[in-house]
Amino acid sequence: MKTIHIGIIGAGRIGKIHADNLLRMPGAKISAIGDLFAGDELRAWAASRAIPVVTNNSIEILERPDIDAVLICSSTDTHVPLIKQAAANGKHIFCEKPVSLSVDQTREALAAVKAAGVSLQIGFNRRFDHNFRRVREIVSEGRIGDPHLIKITSRDPNPPHPDYIKGSGGLFMDMAIHDFDIARYLSGSEVVEVFAQGAVLVDPAIGEQGDIDTAVTTLRFESGALGVIDNSRQAVYGYDQRVEVFGSGGSVTADNDYPSTTVVSGPEGVTRDKPLYFFLERYTEAYMNEAKQFIESLQNGTPVPVSGHDGLQAELIALAAKRSLEQGRPVKLAELTAGTSVG
Amino acid sequence: MKTIHIGIIGAGRIGKIHADNLLRMPGAKISAIGDLFAGDELRAWAASRAIPVVTNNSIEILERPDIDAVLICSSTDTHVPLIKQAAANGKHIFCEKPVSLSVDQTREALAAVKAAGVSLQIGFNRRFDHNFRRVREIVSEGRIGDPHLIKITSRDPNPPHPDYIKGSGGLFMDMAIHDFDIARYLSGSEVVEVFAQGAVLVDPAIGEQGDIDTAVTTLRFESGALGVIDNSRQAVYGYDQRVEVFGSGGSVTADNDYPSTTVVSGPEGVTRDKPLYFFLERYTEAYMNEAKQFIESLQNGTPVPVSGHDGLQAELIALAAKRSLEQGRPVKLAELTAGTSVG
Amino acid sequence: MKTIHIGIIGAGRIGKIHADNLLRMPGAKISAIGDLFAGDELRAWAASRAIPVVTNNSIEILERPDIDAVLICSSTDTHVPLIKQAAANGKHIFCEKPVSLSVDQTREALAAVKAAGVSLQIGFNRRFDHNFRRVREIVSEGRIGDPHLIKITSRDPNPPHPDYIKGSGGLFMDMAIHDFDIARYLSGSEVVEVFAQGAVLVDPAIGEQGDIDTAVTTLRFESGALGVIDNSRQAVYGYDQRVEVFGSGGSVTADNDYPSTTVVSGPEGVTRDKPLYFFLERYTEAYMNEAKQFIESLQNGTPVPVSGHDGLQAELIALAAKRSLEQGRPVKLAELTAGTSVG
Amino acid sequence: MKTIHIGIIGAGRIGKIHADNLLRMPGAKISAIGDLFAGDELRAWAASRAIPVVTNNSIEILERPDIDAVLICSSTDTHVPLIKQAAANGKHIFCEKPVSLSVDQTREALAAVKAAGVSLQIGFNRRFDHNFRRVREIVSEGRIGDPHLIKITSRDPNPPHPDYIKGSGGLFMDMAIHDFDIARYLSGSEVVEVFAQGAVLVDPAIGEQGDIDTAVTTLRFESGALGVIDNSRQAVYGYDQRVEVFGSGGSVTADNDYPSTTVVSGPEGVTRDKPLYFFLERYTEAYMNEAKQFIESLQNGTPVPVSGHDGLQAELIALAAKRSLEQGRPVKLAELTAGTSVG
Repeated sequence: MKTIHIGIIGAGRIGKIHADNLLRMPGAKISAIGDLFAGDELRAWAASRAIPVVTNNSIEILERPDIDAVLICSSTDTHVPLIKQAAANGKHIFCEKPVSLSVDQTREALAAVKAAGVSLQIGFNRRFDHNFRRVREIVSEGRIGDPHLIKITSRDPNPPHPDYIKGSGGLFMDMAIHDFDIARYLSGSEVVEVFAQGAVLVDPAIGEQGDIDTAVTTLRFESGALGVIDNSRQAVYGYDQRVEVFGSGGSVTADNDYPSTTVVSGPEGVTRDKPLYFFLERYTEAYMNEAKQFIESLQNGTPVPVSGHDGLQAELIALAAKRSLEQGRPVKLAELTAGTSVG
Repeated sequence: MKTIHIGIIGAGRIGKIHADNLLRMPGAKISAIGDLFAGDELRAWAASRAIPVVTNNSIEILERPDIDAVLICSSTDTHVPLIKQAAANGKHIFCEKPVSLSVDQTREALAAVKAAGVSLQIGFNRRFDHNFRRVREIVSEGRIGDPHLIKITSRDPNPPHPDYIKGSGGLFMDMAIHDFDIARYLSGSEVVEVFAQGAVLVDPAIGEQGDIDTAVTTLRFESGALGVIDNSRQAVYGYDQRVEVFGSGGSVTADNDYPSTTVVSGPEGVTRDKPLYFFLERYTEAYMNEAKQFIESLQNGTPVPVSGHDGLQAELIALAAKRSLEQGRPVKLAELTAGTSVG
Repeated sequence: MKTIHIGIIGAGRIGKIHADNLLRMPGAKISAIGDLFAGDELRAWAASRAIPVVTNNSIEILERPDIDAVLICSSTDTHVPLIKQAAANGKHIFCEKPVSLSVDQTREALAAVKAAGVSLQIGFNRRFDHNFRRVREIVSEGRIGDPHLIKITSRDPNPPHPDYIKGSGGLFMDMAIHDFDIARYLSGSEVVEVFAQGAVLVDPAIGEQGDIDTAVTTLRFESGALGVIDNSRQAVYGYDQRVEVFGSGGSVTADNDYPSTTVVSGPEGVTRDKPLYFFLERYTEAYMNEAKQFIESLQNGTPVPVSGHDGLQAELIALAAKRSLEQGRPVKLAELTAGTSVG
Repeated sequence: MKTIHIGIIGAGRIGKIHADNLLRMPGAKISAIGDLFAGDELRAWAASRAIPVVTNNSIEILERPDIDAVLICSSTDTHVPLIKQAAANGKHIFCEKPVSLSVDQTREALAAVKAAGVSLQIGFNRRFDHNFRRVREIVSEGRIGDPHLIKITSRDPNPPHPDYIKGSGGLFMDMAIHDFDIARYLSGSEVVEVFAQGAVLVDPAIGEQGDIDTAVTTLRFESGALGVIDNSRQAVYGYDQRVEVFGSGGSVTADNDYPSTTVVSGPEGVTRDKPLYFFLERYTEAYMNEAKQFIESLQNGTPVPVSGHDGLQAELIALAAKRSLEQGRPVKLAELTAGTSVG
């Protein structure tokens, strides 16, 4: 088994999760970690994990000849330049979602990747969740016939800080983009039209940033199937991530995951604990699996499981949703020409 | 307890269900049943239930002085003339949904009812279902805070015969009208805007009738809440009628009813029987309760639980959905002027 | 369809439930109702239901030539004399459980019934519950193979008044007797040995009456299968009636029934309402069905669905459980000789 | 954080699981692994994990001065001599269950551990399962009041090979011993009396080895509570591990774990996949947690979470169950004198 030498760019929460997952993976070796704000804390963290190089200069990582692949976990605005440079240096790339807030720039990044002949995997971690994966298997096996309706519920336990909202690209590009990807994944079909309705019901401060916190987005797929996604920035009972695919031969649903199967019956009713709190709890295993499959695809020379095309398509749907909301009409993906800014 | 003397017009399946429910109700007495096609079979049926009068001429029923109230269970095109005549004769009225396929005519019927000072209850039986009723109670008690999202799944086990589709008013007026009513009932708010997407995925013969068999309809409520309804004419696992109301303080869902709680674990998996087959099985108790509350409101001189206004609003939403589908844009209820034909 | 003319003896809660169920049943006519304490209230109740005869003297009912069948719903100590007299008068009999507290007397009653050639059905209402019936069907169809284990949970929401305990025959004869019958019904096999453990954990006043309020009873069946029943006089969350049959080919369970399928997710957890409160709520439909099948068996001349033998067997198991508890050892049904008093 | 140097004795399936779990644990270092049949395969396996020492002679491990603690994962008959020798060498000990098939020998081992002042943890992995742990928490918090009934279902997906049965100590000592421990853990009370019923229903070959494959065991606790455990060597739908604690204030249940929350509704019914297959799948995380807590207790000098006393008590219950089955009577733990062989 070939060992893949990895550099991680961006040592925030998600960068560290990937690092810890890779450390447990035979065949992966973390050679360097870079972060603009790397300091003593990160150095200590890296030392305890025997990661030899820590740097403030991510370019240094991209240029190291001993590195086969990089994980780009820095802020969204850095993704495209880093992808281009990594590609130019012949590094394989794992990049967190979204690639960028501009479809134009995302296309440039994809072109650079293609030109360099390197691999690019997008961090749509939910595809690696045991529930969604099983739904996809069941759909693929034809057990529910032809899909007619794809339904996705996706709600966060808490809204992000309004400051975060500002640079996030908005609910569709920041949060629902995962659901757009899952819609494509579960249906096995491309989205052709989007209609989005949104509201500010959770926190007026979100509205003041020009964003929404509640949305219902309907989709029309190339296959003729319809889809609907409901989003909220705040479900007080925790992370709510459920899907259903309904078809000519039946229906398949996936419910939330719970910390235990324990149920208490008492004078007040029959109660179980809330679902797993948020994405770190719910998708622990999914993060591990996405890193594992990235490494394996590099070792085996096989295609990555989530491609740059997947990243671009989800961005186009998000852009269409945004435009639909702004203009109060359904928007076809075909009308989104290259170069339109998402921001 | 005052006895209410009742005449039933239309002795089809639903007319007979109401009759059998009323027969069990102390304080209700069925004096006559009328059907255009009344024959020996109906006469025998009525005799076995000690219903004294059977007639082919429904007008006769409306004119009988011993009758306090009529149940209109005949075909939709007869509803408005029968309501007008019943009102003119001072009879209280229970009318199956929809009142008519024309909002204009429905308004005329409502005006006649108002002028005559009689009661009019619309047959939205689902409001009397134990599950939806409990959801409404929980929302009303504030247990989920302010509603943000109302979600309704409504799928039939089998499509009707294409011939039926023709005169039905289409999926929105015939089938989803129940869901539009439930959306108003659960949210406690009026619908202000509708966007509908539809498809013919179940049976091309339905498309040939100019109708659809699959739909996703999004709603915007006066309260600011959003709603979404998904409909299919065919769920191979049976009648699928589920709802969710999600709000600032939590969420409440209602699942289907099942014939038993029995679950089998075997080499193939863990399986329960399919949900109750169709509306007759699922809403048996709801039909009983709606008739009971109609009789009680007449006995007590209290308002009926589902008013003519409720009937009209649901029709307006259906009309908006139809127009949205035809024109590919969201439609505000405000733009539906009186007199617009639904047909 | 032959009309069955019925007399009801004992106008307590259960007698009235049977009466109201029979009143809805085409082919059944209640000719008389008798109760030792019949007064104005009962007369008014009967008048509102058009029951022509009300009497303090139940013997009168047994002697009326216009009566085909009697329902014995009076106190347990009157069952055997009434059965004997009813049989002597050629009346078919429905008798509430238990037939008596003495196996000897029960045998005498059964002998009288046999000699007279009349039908005798015992009021084991749970056999007519939709859940237990479905479990039995699934077992009978061989879907779980050969039964290996029969598990029954049976808990009341509240203990009866200590005064009631006194004359009840104790937990095994009064409460668990239903479970002993269900164990035979679900397994399709006779019980050959019983071991009972009991405790007073709910209310010391029950212990002062010489009874227990908590029990675990293990059974050995003729087929080789094992069984276990757990009983409590008090489950604070309501009536708890669940079963499982585990076999060589799988397992089938039946859960409680709930007033609705509604589930609330909130900051405290995910909660549904408590199960249906007690036997009147849970077994409403079962009471209807047992009366219906009694009438139908008389109309069709077919065997009753729950025989006198079934009544006797359940009593024998209860007696064995009682002796096991007293003597601290497993007790074989074979060692219970005729004439042993249960009291 | 102090590093604990560990030797593993017995490199079978469970020894290797512990090894892989410890390898991921900061603060634990595996210094050596020993197995009577250690060969090239084990050497390669150890090399890939950077375990420096591999030996056929486990005594060598016990004598190495660089080792702080040993995990005894070899066959049951070796446990007692290894514990004694490890204790004599001042090593802390983790030992798989059961300590031995003789209560007498187990007591000797415990005495040696006590004399040496080392820690001894018994491998009752289920105490570390997220479901059972949560049940225990809920009971401890008093949410269900005083426990009245403890119910445990414990069924394997497949019986072991008859050859394994022979040396296993039988169903009670080999399989149900876990349930006896969980009964003590969940109730928080000692068992005082046991009555066991058993049968050979799965495989006659098991009966030919003098063992049973199906059992119902009732327990009486010091607290007055009752308990019941049902065991089967074969549930065709997979590993079935459920518990319930019922008390004065309510009830708490834990269901099985499933590979996903996916449910398919189709013409045949509503189906989910079978539960996780067997103990390796169900208790993956529990194995990790028990090793983690063992290491942490050594690092912090705190008591181990499952003591030698826990091991002994479970063996005593198993012995009582065996005697009860043989003698057809309830057996008090008090009557089991030291030195009685379990075998």
